[in-house]
Amino acid sequence: MTQNEKDIFFMREALAEAYRAAELDEVPVGAVVTFDDMVIARACNTRETEKCAVCHAEISAIREACRVRGGWRLPGSTLYVTLEPCPMCMGAAVNARFERVVFGATDPKGGACGGLFDLLDYPLNHHPETVGGVLKEECSQILTAYFKNKRAK
Amino acid sequence: MTQNEKDIFFMREALAEAYRAAELDEVPVGAVVTFDDMVIARACNTRETEKCAVCHAEISAIREACRVRGGWRLPGSTLYVTLEPCPMCMGAAVNARFERVVFGATDPKGGACGGLFDLLDYPLNHHPETVGGVLKEECSQILTAYFKNKRAK
Repeated sequence: MTQNEKDIFFMREALAEAYRAAELDEVPVGAVVTFDDMVIARACNTRETEKCAVCHAEISAIREACRVRGGWRLPGSTLYVTLEPCPMCMGAAVNARFERVVFGATDPKGGACGGLFDLLDYPLNHHPETVGGVLKEECSQILTAYFKNKRAK
Repeated sequence: MTQNEKDIFFMREALAEAYRAAELDEVPVGAVVTFDDMVIARACNTRETEKCAVCHAEISAIREACRVRGGWRLPGSTLYVTLEPCPMCMGAAVNARFERVVFGATDPKGGACGGLFDLLDYPLNHHPETVGGVLKEECSQILTAYFKNKRAK
């Protein structure tokens, strides 16, 4: 598989987590962490379910990936997430030394990978490679459907 | 007590957490969360001990504060932390809707409250009031001593 094919493959795994979030009536965002071309951690947004401000999909997946790899540094790992990370989550990806961050839909209101601003414009001590727009239609559509349904209630 | 006296009082509580981190041989940073002029959560940096990239003092204190208050929004709460928050932690403070963020030492290499850059320069959906420099000498000194000791080893 090419890198692009791998990114699509793993984004489908992240999307599966986003669908799980939707079933929990959470803003449907999902994430997986890979290492050596395998999924080593997966999580969805559980902010309402766990009543926890930091329980975005990315933070929960990163916590699990650190457990699996046995350390706080995750070199060689990629974070896949269906929505562009917010400053908290992109900051976490920098802190965890991810090699790559791959996201689906762009978030112009809060995204820290170029949507609202680019955290990597600043000289932080680590800069993951970032790729956006992978399966962006499907990643956006699940969010649009969720908010449309919320407004109708 | 004036607000400034309260800030000094609660920063001493955050410093007690930083000293606890030093005893664990962690980068000595501590945080507390207050509500109604009471400490409702406290934590220190445990990144090495828990082998977890997101276990900064602020994230752990915010998780605990959400548990105590029973929701992911923490309006009326203040986050006290001995070192200027990194992008992850300042992003978390925004996500949790803190009323105020009060820090001690400035971090020119990674601080997201003006040290390296100011996250609040961007039109995020919530902007806590921020105050820096509270007990900054003591908050800096414990970090300086830690790193000096590390280099000597």
